Amino acid sequence: MADVTTSAQTTTTVPPDIEIAEAATLTPIVDLAREQLGIEPDALVPYGHTKAKVSLGYVRSLADRSEGRLVLVTAISPTPAGEGKTTTSVGLADALASLGEKAMVALREPSMGPVFGIKGGAAGGGYAQVVPMTDINLNFTGDFAAIAAANNLLSAILDNHVHHGNALGIDPRTVTWKRVVDLNDRALRDVVVGLGGVANGIPREDGFDIVVASEVMAILCLATSIKDLKERLGNVVVGYTRDKQPVTARDLKAHGAMTVILRDALAPNLVQTLEHTPAMIHGGPFANIAHGCNSVMATRTALRLADYVVTEAGFGADLGAEKFIDIKCRQSGLRPSAVVVVATVRALKYHGGMAVADLKQESVDALTLGMANLRRHLRNVRDVYGLPAVVALNRFPTDTDAEVAALLRLVEEEGFRAFEATHYADGAAGAQDLARGVLDAIENSPGEMQLVYPDDLSLAEKAEAVATRVYGAAGVTFDAKAARRLAAIEAEGFGHLPVCMAKTQSSFSTDPTLRGAPVDHTVHVREVRLAAGAGFVVMVTGDIMTMPGLPKVPASEHIDVDDDGRIVGLS
Amino acid sequence: MADVTTSAQTTTTVPPDIEIAEAATLTPIVDLAREQLGIEPDALVPYGHTKAKVSLGYVRSLADRSEGRLVLVTAISPTPAGEGKTTTSVGLADALASLGEKAMVALREPSMGPVFGIKGGAAGGGYAQVVPMTDINLNFTGDFAAIAAANNLLSAILDNHVHHGNALGIDPRTVTWKRVVDLNDRALRDVVVGLGGVANGIPREDGFDIVVASEVMAILCLATSIKDLKERLGNVVVGYTRDKQPVTARDLKAHGAMTVILRDALAPNLVQTLEHTPAMIHGGPFANIAHGCNSVMATRTALRLADYVVTEAGFGADLGAEKFIDIKCRQSGLRPSAVVVVATVRALKYHGGMAVADLKQESVDALTLGMANLRRHLRNVRDVYGLPAVVALNRFPTDTDAEVAALLRLVEEEGFRAFEATHYADGAAGAQDLARGVLDAIENSPGEMQLVYPDDLSLAEKAEAVATRVYGAAGVTFDAKAARRLAAIEAEGFGHLPVCMAKTQSSFSTDPTLRGAPVDHTVHVREVRLAAGAGFVVMVTGDIMTMPGLPKVPASEHIDVDDDGRIVGLS
Repeated sequence: MADVTTSAQTTTTVPPDIEIAEAATLTPIVDLAREQLGIEPDALVPYGHTKAKVSLGYVRSLADRSEGRLVLVTAISPTPAGEGKTTTSVGLADALASLGEKAMVALREPSMGPVFGIKGGAAGGGYAQVVPMTDINLNFTGDFAAIAAANNLLSAILDNHVHHGNALGIDPRTVTWKRVVDLNDRALRDVVVGLGGVANGIPREDGFDIVVASEVMAILCLATSIKDLKERLGNVVVGYTRDKQPVTARDLKAHGAMTVILRDALAPNLVQTLEHTPAMIHGGPFANIAHGCNSVMATRTALRLADYVVTEAGFGADLGAEKFIDIKCRQSGLRPSAVVVVATVRALKYHGGMAVADLKQESVDALTLGMANLRRHLRNVRDVYGLPAVVALNRFPTDTDAEVAALLRLVEEEGFRAFEATHYADGAAGAQDLARGVLDAIENSPGEMQLVYPDDLSLAEKAEAVATRVYGAAGVTFDAKAARRLAAIEAEGFGHLPVCMAKTQSSFSTDPTLRGAPVDHTVHVREVRLAAGAGFVVMVTGDIMTMPGLPKVPASEHIDVDDDGRIVGLS
Repeated sequence: MADVTTSAQTTTTVPPDIEIAEAATLTPIVDLAREQLGIEPDALVPYGHTKAKVSLGYVRSLADRSEGRLVLVTAISPTPAGEGKTTTSVGLADALASLGEKAMVALREPSMGPVFGIKGGAAGGGYAQVVPMTDINLNFTGDFAAIAAANNLLSAILDNHVHHGNALGIDPRTVTWKRVVDLNDRALRDVVVGLGGVANGIPREDGFDIVVASEVMAILCLATSIKDLKERLGNVVVGYTRDKQPVTARDLKAHGAMTVILRDALAPNLVQTLEHTPAMIHGGPFANIAHGCNSVMATRTALRLADYVVTEAGFGADLGAEKFIDIKCRQSGLRPSAVVVVATVRALKYHGGMAVADLKQESVDALTLGMANLRRHLRNVRDVYGLPAVVALNRFPTDTDAEVAALLRLVEEEGFRAFEATHYADGAAGAQDLARGVLDAIENSPGEMQLVYPDDLSLAEKAEAVATRVYGAAGVTFDAKAARRLAAIEAEGFGHLPVCMAKTQSSFSTDPTLRGAPVDHTVHVREVRLAAGAGFVVMVTGDIMTMPGLPKVPASEHIDVDDDGRIVGLS
């Protein structure tokens, strides 16, 4: 499911994330906003003393400001060893700030579901965290709850419409719009609703996704104004009539009320890092079924407030970064100036074939084999995306000097620069070399971002472009049903949309066990989903989980609160 | 479903609620808290500039303060004509403040579901509203979302436990714990979850209630501290083992994480009325399946901050007020000093047999007949609850002087005082007579509140006491299954709990069509539900709706937001 971020990285000297976070002294958010960003208190909507939304009116008032440079943090293909993309984003922003630059970090909001499952929190780790950590990982400013309410109101209105005579002629068997909750709840994946007799409506198959997999989440993250949000919500296709005509949220007159529920959620959230660097944490769509980046509102607002904005895309550079470019940048006009590819010695040894249990053992050979994964990502960034790339070597205590030296050399042989980073243990000081490298890349490699494919290719050709150019695949095949659906979507007028590839994050291929850099593989699309409101067409390859389950012993068993309200057990 | 509050009252001169609310100039909540209540900004957790939570630490710091007087606002049996309990509560608090008293109002939070259904908002009406009205009616401070998340996390953990081997031996057929959403969604009343094969768990019948019907809501409203909240959540019984032993949230190790989710929600919310009287709006359980009052935390905190606190109980004095006394006061030690019974000429004519369409016609005869309803409520308050009662005659423009004079006389003949109130149109000035009457009642009738039954009666005897003493019933009968369940609950050690009668609000009887004051009726209990965490046993009589549906044309169709983010269509 969601990214494996970084708390996996542990040393004997660094206390648990929550202890560091709870011990931190935070700057009152109104002071931080005024002193560092020039935002007056009236332009903030505080949620407590250390988090705030930046009002939509203030966001609008920034429209004519010039924008800073955007640095995209991505990674090699994720492994069970953990890479540390969020910590690196935070550490890099802190390091830029410590070098005297006006810097911000713009990240996704964590989903509460995984917090109670396996993953724990997602606000960075060690000495590279965003705070208040428990708030950010839990209810935060209510954005996810608002998304769930808007999503589920549309479901309720849809079923209500069918119940009350179905004037639009919706075929209940064709409804694609699912309900959502922000929990890991496998029992809700496949359900039958409307049981119990006439008064309860029409029985039909339905299911719940986790909030981050919802189209409303993707829409909120791509919308540029209340007007655009409402327009996109109106465009959502919920299903089809018996005449196979799409039925939209606008047809159901649901989009106005949905926008009302989401009005406050559209405003970006401002918090800070442990080192008081301003942080925008806003939106958090999946990086498979959706585009996997924080909101356009937050990124754009940060760029108008700072000279350097560090942002993160989901999973590896084949997934999150591709979508960042082909969906978020395509729709918004945003353009990154440099890309940081996060790699670890451990993860590359895993890509070189080592078992997880063996990763503590030194192996330059495995590392050299695993370099194939990093190499392809780096070449993609440079040659396909057209952007300067820098490698962040997120160093773990178990990494040997020989391994680190080998990795630095291997990267250099590819014509890129790699920088050791120890922000997890050392905060900003641990990422200053990386920060200087990034600044240097921005100055000296004025790349111009390239989309992977133009709008006017067919949807199948777009998938083919991503698969061959980014994944190194031989080609794309389609289930007969998926091919028919593609044809229908194009006939409905959605052929101009970009594609959103839902692929395993663990491999360049659709087989999660193929580590490194597989070649000559085929990408098989088994299902196609239209996200007309978000503005993309999802190509589902393999099994994509849109509702995680809880493990046998969920993290929730150890999450508790003492009598004074202090939360314990959150990692 | 939820109470019919007051916006039904319209005149040609009073603008729509939302226009009045949006035109209001609100005092910044930090200023209001400091100036009126002596609360420093650090003790507040602001949510924007006009709403805040009062921090739990500050709430605790008030523990030794003396408490003001509590005024409970209740009503005759609700009718389609609308009575105006919330507006009267707001108007009375404003009037007390305008007379120089230090007054607050403590109300329930509206549920978002009905806002998009028929009901519209629930923040008062006319010139007697709490503001910011749109915020209060929508996501507010996230309390309901947190309740839903905590409730549904328990469901997820339960199904996960069964899926992963069911070490506790839970019998899935006996699970009574349902999922919730804060929407009107009839399609979710009866569902089957866990479909789709082995990976998705065990299929079983389930259902969703609306958040206000959940035990977590009741628990949050009765909890007095984080510790008490966690203890109550741990006590929740979710179902039974195959050996018929109760399984609790504590057995599932879910209560700690649930408490974590609810930590912020436990702190009471501070807002203001249109006339800048401080208002606590916190919690909102149903008044049938639950106890129908705002939170103990809010009521108690308000009493420590003000000399007079006006609070409201759900539905009529037979339902909400009875539960206010027998559940909320019994558990918390709170004691009201006076009771205001809200009545209208229109509603009493309805109780006297008039059709809704005819209510604009003068009829002292119908009014005199309908007085039977008010009479029984007044006698109950005085003779059963042991409290001084005052009638608020919430005057509508269509009421004739003859009708008003007749009602005032009828009330006087019963030995009570009634006061015309026009706060809907006139604000505080319209309720000053009522306020003086309430102050007088408190001074001159130092009643001592009586519980309707002692703890040590059997559960059946407790139901009998309410039915005969309050409802005027001849007695109580039980379905065989309900009787068996009662015996089991007592055997499990819950016989000492108070009962929570789930009865139609429209009649003293269980037949909603029996207006006025029916006698010799029998209350038939068809189902019994244990709420071990909330600390009561629900006696279900008749059909009690715990998940409303949307009407053919839901209010959501007319609720919209303009490009500047202004919400329209909310009433």
